[in-house]
Amino acid sequence: MPITLTTDFGCADEYTGVVKGVILSINPDAVIVDLTHAISPHDVRSAALVIGRSYRFFPPGSIHLCIVDPGVGTSRKILALKACGHYFVGPDNGVFSQLLTDEKSAEVYQVSNKAWFLDEVSNTFHGRDIMAPVAARISLGEPLEAAGPSLSSSSCLTLPVCMSTYTGSEVIGEISSIDRFGNIITNITRQCLQALPGGAAFILRIRSASISYYEGSYGDLPDNQLAAIINSSNLIEICVKNGSAAEMLGAVVGEQVSVN
Amino acid sequence: MPITLTTDFGCADEYTGVVKGVILSINPDAVIVDLTHAISPHDVRSAALVIGRSYRFFPPGSIHLCIVDPGVGTSRKILALKACGHYFVGPDNGVFSQLLTDEKSAEVYQVSNKAWFLDEVSNTFHGRDIMAPVAARISLGEPLEAAGPSLSSSSCLTLPVCMSTYTGSEVIGEISSIDRFGNIITNITRQCLQALPGGAAFILRIRSASISYYEGSYGDLPDNQLAAIINSSNLIEICVKNGSAAEMLGAVVGEQVSVN
Amino acid sequence: MPITLTTDFGCADEYTGVVKGVILSINPDAVIVDLTHAISPHDVRSAALVIGRSYRFFPPGSIHLCIVDPGVGTSRKILALKACGHYFVGPDNGVFSQLLTDEKSAEVYQVSNKAWFLDEVSNTFHGRDIMAPVAARISLGEPLEAAGPSLSSSSCLTLPVCMSTYTGSEVIGEISSIDRFGNIITNITRQCLQALPGGAAFILRIRSASISYYEGSYGDLPDNQLAAIINSSNLIEICVKNGSAAEMLGAVVGEQVSVN
Repeated sequence: MPITLTTDFGCADEYTGVVKGVILSINPDAVIVDLTHAISPHDVRSAALVIGRSYRFFPPGSIHLCIVDPGVGTSRKILALKACGHYFVGPDNGVFSQLLTDEKSAEVYQVSNKAWFLDEVSNTFHGRDIMAPVAARISLGEPLEAAGPSLSSSSCLTLPVCMSTYTGSEVIGEISSIDRFGNIITNITRQCLQALPGGAAFILRIRSASISYYEGSYGDLPDNQLAAIINSSNLIEICVKNGSAAEMLGAVVGEQVSVN
Repeated sequence: MPITLTTDFGCADEYTGVVKGVILSINPDAVIVDLTHAISPHDVRSAALVIGRSYRFFPPGSIHLCIVDPGVGTSRKILALKACGHYFVGPDNGVFSQLLTDEKSAEVYQVSNKAWFLDEVSNTFHGRDIMAPVAARISLGEPLEAAGPSLSSSSCLTLPVCMSTYTGSEVIGEISSIDRFGNIITNITRQCLQALPGGAAFILRIRSASISYYEGSYGDLPDNQLAAIINSSNLIEICVKNGSAAEMLGAVVGEQVSVN
Repeated sequence: MPITLTTDFGCADEYTGVVKGVILSINPDAVIVDLTHAISPHDVRSAALVIGRSYRFFPPGSIHLCIVDPGVGTSRKILALKACGHYFVGPDNGVFSQLLTDEKSAEVYQVSNKAWFLDEVSNTFHGRDIMAPVAARISLGEPLEAAGPSLSSSSCLTLPVCMSTYTGSEVIGEISSIDRFGNIITNITRQCLQALPGGAAFILRIRSASISYYEGSYGDLPDNQLAAIINSSNLIEICVKNGSAAEMLGAVVGEQVSVN
């Protein structure tokens, strides 16, 4: 089963390469896929969003290793867990919020079996010294419970990453990311719209702008017209044909949007 | 056989990782190679150039998946084709111009077999929902003709990406890319020079500069001297030893150059 | 055994992808890992540092291909060598300085067996035409001595990349890199500290600042306090909790630091 990597290492330093070396030293047949290494340093919330919307495109039983770990070397726990048919390894800091919200009966273990760690464990790179070896062991088929003692999934830290609020008349959410094309991705899901009386025929508001729902494809839009669509992750997204909606609106991550 | 990826996704978003997840879900043994994800958004022409000069360095029978798809979700076709001993999957927007120019007898199919698609097909990410599964099926050895009905290769959209013009006395071309080292790569091939009376001993002109052909290596050049060489893709390139020719000349992609 | 890649190709051009294509054409089962492609163009010294601190995290017998080759096409030699239980392929320009310093009895061969090269060898891309095929052959288990004649390891070019100086009262070194998190990495190793009378309880000086040694983790530091730690590569590093030490100090690569 593939091992995916989600980190805040960027592409310049050798940290990701070294993590892969550790995995291949334990499981020479591991198939390793980069999900992203462009998470902003220490941005646990963005990592949680990326993992939450991506894991299901990998084969069931895949192992998702998330190394966004500002608390490395402190008393924060390291988790190995199974949820939604996939395995996850990473710090107990909220990176698995989506999964732990989606599946209340996740099996969670606190990583503590030193026989699985590298011989020498640094204070500053547990991704390499602890998490990578644990992911490699799981990819070899070793049982998750060998990682350490069981934890209640409700004791794990979760962030309210994916929640928008329904006020009775509108859904309030925010911009959770802006992609390379300038598409503005919100945290409002297709499912949230079911709460609305109007159903799919919604209007999205951002600052003073009102943007209508559009059912078609990017390329069928009139030029320069902002549209709110349901994107390929089932999230509401603001886009414009052949251009950057983020630039047109001057939008930034974290800004409030509402739908009614 | 390897599957290569050429996209305009950049490195920050998880889009490339998710495409790989889809491929591995269908063919767990697929070997996936990133050719580039740095194509400028929607720059079909650059994608065509990159694929045209790169595919032949992969094993015959490799599958080249190109997701530069500004028309996603519109009526543009999706192609699966075999040309020059390799397979290619991507939109019918010119990304395969070089191949369709090089091999007039390419086998082309219009992708339409829904049994090969993901169960849920979005309006905005056919690379993930249609093209990646098709590439994965081909990598499993499934027959190309199962992708959909046959098309005449002459009905496919091709761009004049790789053509320079011979006026009778000189070859006129343009700057097609500038690489990380500041080397200026033109669309004039070694073959084009055969049209010239002087043969290899050419002079390249860009704006008011005249640059002589140089047969040696970068490192054998005198310092600060611009030279025109035949590069490793058999294209005329302007370079300078240990420096950036593009910076010295202030050159930009698209500018005209001529050779005589 | 995996083949790692360390280059100055960046992520935009297709050069790295093409090198992988050449390797897979010779060894379809090769496992290829990117160590980094972000070495500054022609920065041999940084490549030597990255390779020197990374190779040991890969399985013994791994092949490390380094294409940082400003002298491509000139009379500089190409090396295939075995040192510290690993194989290395790259130009004889100092990229393997650390290894040749660490193991005096390295087996070194001058690559010259044309039967191993691509049929057509360019003047400007020996990484693709010579080094990648040689790495692929080694990964197939072909004997290193088939690459070409044996060389004395002392005849290879080495740079003093990893040496700090002990003056009798202090160790003088420099900043060798700054990572994505703004951590300042020096070339002073944990071993160097043994020369000091005070042992581990050192003070690091940079310009007018004095920074105390700190034994704990990033996250246990008080806010905004610079600390000198032994990092995960056993090098002295300056860091600050949840921030960029490099920005706080305005530090740049190459600056002098001292420890006493």
